[in-house]
Amino acid sequence: MNPQRSEARLDESLSEITRLLEKHRVLETLTHRQEGPKRDLLEHLQHRQNLAELQMKVKTLHPADVAHILETLPLDERLLVWQQVATDRRGEVLVELSGAVLDSLLEHTDRQALVSALATLDAEDLGHLAESIPEDLFRDVSKLLDARDRSWLQASINYDENTVGSLMSQEVTFIREQQTVEEAIGYLRSLGELPEQTDQLFVVDARHVLKGAVPLPRLLLHAPGLLATAIMESEIRPFRTDDGAQHAANAFERYNLVSAPVIDERGKLIGRLTVDAVMDFVRNEAEKRALERAGLRGEEDLFASVWDSAKNRAPWLFINLLTAFIASRVIGVFEGTIARLVALATLMPIVASVGGNTGNQTIALMVRGLALDQVKGENSRYMLTKELTVSLVNGLMWGSLMGLFAFTIYRSATLALVMMAAVVLNLLVAAIVGVAVPLMLHKAGRDPAQGASVLLTFITDSMGFFLFLGLARLFLV
Amino acid sequence: MNPQRSEARLDESLSEITRLLEKHRVLETLTHRQEGPKRDLLEHLQHRQNLAELQMKVKTLHPADVAHILETLPLDERLLVWQQVATDRRGEVLVELSGAVLDSLLEHTDRQALVSALATLDAEDLGHLAESIPEDLFRDVSKLLDARDRSWLQASINYDENTVGSLMSQEVTFIREQQTVEEAIGYLRSLGELPEQTDQLFVVDARHVLKGAVPLPRLLLHAPGLLATAIMESEIRPFRTDDGAQHAANAFERYNLVSAPVIDERGKLIGRLTVDAVMDFVRNEAEKRALERAGLRGEEDLFASVWDSAKNRAPWLFINLLTAFIASRVIGVFEGTIARLVALATLMPIVASVGGNTGNQTIALMVRGLALDQVKGENSRYMLTKELTVSLVNGLMWGSLMGLFAFTIYRSATLALVMMAAVVLNLLVAAIVGVAVPLMLHKAGRDPAQGASVLLTFITDSMGFFLFLGLARLFLV
Repeated sequence: MNPQRSEARLDESLSEITRLLEKHRVLETLTHRQEGPKRDLLEHLQHRQNLAELQMKVKTLHPADVAHILETLPLDERLLVWQQVATDRRGEVLVELSGAVLDSLLEHTDRQALVSALATLDAEDLGHLAESIPEDLFRDVSKLLDARDRSWLQASINYDENTVGSLMSQEVTFIREQQTVEEAIGYLRSLGELPEQTDQLFVVDARHVLKGAVPLPRLLLHAPGLLATAIMESEIRPFRTDDGAQHAANAFERYNLVSAPVIDERGKLIGRLTVDAVMDFVRNEAEKRALERAGLRGEEDLFASVWDSAKNRAPWLFINLLTAFIASRVIGVFEGTIARLVALATLMPIVASVGGNTGNQTIALMVRGLALDQVKGENSRYMLTKELTVSLVNGLMWGSLMGLFAFTIYRSATLALVMMAAVVLNLLVAAIVGVAVPLMLHKAGRDPAQGASVLLTFITDSMGFFLFLGLARLFLV
Repeated sequence: MNPQRSEARLDESLSEITRLLEKHRVLETLTHRQEGPKRDLLEHLQHRQNLAELQMKVKTLHPADVAHILETLPLDERLLVWQQVATDRRGEVLVELSGAVLDSLLEHTDRQALVSALATLDAEDLGHLAESIPEDLFRDVSKLLDARDRSWLQASINYDENTVGSLMSQEVTFIREQQTVEEAIGYLRSLGELPEQTDQLFVVDARHVLKGAVPLPRLLLHAPGLLATAIMESEIRPFRTDDGAQHAANAFERYNLVSAPVIDERGKLIGRLTVDAVMDFVRNEAEKRALERAGLRGEEDLFASVWDSAKNRAPWLFINLLTAFIASRVIGVFEGTIARLVALATLMPIVASVGGNTGNQTIALMVRGLALDQVKGENSRYMLTKELTVSLVNGLMWGSLMGLFAFTIYRSATLALVMMAAVVLNLLVAAIVGVAVPLMLHKAGRDPAQGASVLLTFITDSMGFFLFLGLARLFLV
């Protein structure tokens, strides 16, 4: 065996597939252009051979790699590759796909094929797909599950999206407290194989109440006659189904966990949370946040149609236009002032922009502090005082610079002072909004990263114009 | 045992500590205010008892939890708690701290205490701290390591920050290919305990070349006489030290890995990458990105001094001011035009703002696509065409709305048309910049998220003013 590095391997597969798709396209064009039965036959054969090669290539790939490749292809090529995926592997590929790409495949695959693909999945994978697939299709597929899996599925889709319940798995291996090491090993042998990411066995009592956990290596290292309770770890950190997924992620990171038990309110073991689910959650959150910060609500397929893209981006643009309109009306009030001193129009965007930039820095720090549980009710007043002081320092420093800039160009000391005062005041506004808005969103149980920035920019723009033009009207014209 | 949920437990500890700190503060104030030797003695005792309680509480906490609590406290209280941490546990706490908080403690702890704290750490943990602690301190501490650890440390600090090398661990458990299951188990027993996150043993040949891996459960499930090579997995995914950490993270997520081997160019096993290191990397990256997007270069301690904070934020504000100045000079060129039609001053910020907002959406999508390896050279032209079309659609749609708005207020059809044309053109500019800048940054080997947004806003602001005022001068005044 010559182990190959995974990324190198994936890149190779991708270019191999791209080559085959390219060939496919050429053959398609030829077929349409050329005439004559003989040529047709030859090309037909070439065509079929090419597709067979593509099929073979797809077959050797990990489902997650197939999913990745599907995500990097435009719709028509994506569908062509998708058709080459064997029916019994299609389910596994669907589970790995991101929302928007999944939708595109669901839309272009006939119902019967979808049912067969989904029928290969277990309750847990179906649970992940529950929100993405049409309701009637989901109902039909879940009918194929046995009673136990169906009830698990039912429970799991009812958990709130950002809770441990929605991430947990039912594949949990446990032993009883009176079992010995030898019995435990015998039990594992009888199972044949263990679920992925099993680093420990949970120990329960007769009522299925969680008592502790035995890390797998301990089974190897201890005498066969020892009781499970003698070698188990009792300092464990169980979760409840309604614990926040973000909190669970913090705990996994902090304590370097691979798996953790999930218990109900009576302490009974009901499931297991594993690091792969947590890591998926962390990455999805990070990606979602980055997109949401730019006002992209859903995931957007890179190859989505123009119309879908425009629709996806419209709400945000609309909100931003609305706030820009209002800020613009603030300027409108001062048109008389501007008419008398046009320099104001030139300088006012600077005042607005510096407010938005400092405020966004405060927001970034607050959002991070809230996500890491570092900002609490007790120290938020401290934060506000600090941010106000930083703003004052920055305001005086940069405000002077901007005043100097204004003076250099327009030779008016009053204009320079108005500029400086407006900057200082707008930075103080930015500090207050930057601290208060994420805190309020957090207290309201919402994501502080979402919406805070729009609201801030709206206020610092409007206030920037208002303060600068208002002061100018008072002292200058 | 009554397992308690970890987050609840941590919150309780935090409020307990806050209570003790509060009491400490009250006692301090009293001591300074009151006179008389008797009172003094009583308070002195109370004081000592309070600190002893704090010490006890800190003792029961996981090092990561102590670190978390230190991060949520202002400097003076942070130092008080830090002094209660036992000397032999201080090293473990230091490793868990984020950069800025770590600095604050390093600064306020005397050198001898730091050497003792750091001396408890192994080469790997020291490697993590290498960049944060002063060079001479680091040299002194590394002298305390044995030769093997010191050479590992030397190698590990030389790896580039975002590579597998900088994340990998030397704690790797391996067996030889001719060993049997029984011998492997015997070997594990002789080790006594396995490194954290050991889910598999790596199999090497006589020259230490990696041949495969045996998942731990297989040792439990197979007959003692079987050869390691008979039960090993040979489809493994080794990394090299110079592989990108981001690529490794993608692979861990895609294939649900707990650990993976790291090999050198001759295929020899030299280390191991574990999911906890990968998860730390993923979270740090996400946090760093979120802060960098707001122009915060380093991590900023929530309780940093005002001066440190102002310094940390200054470079970004300076860059933004500079771009705002330039954009403002674009307006300056058209002051004559604005003097003749003040409405232009009122409307121009809308044109600039809508360009910035749509452009940032394109950037967010590009950055995500690049991070997930979905955007490649081949499809970037496709992306550009698509984004241009979306911009055209959005421009016509929202441009009409804005034209209508302008017409409603100022009753000028020409002004409305100028507004619409400027919006359409500025959105096309935004699409080009939004696609091109992240691509160029990525090709230059830099983080596409960093800097793209400033550059974009600069261009869409300047171009927004230029297009709108320029068209207005041509057609309106």
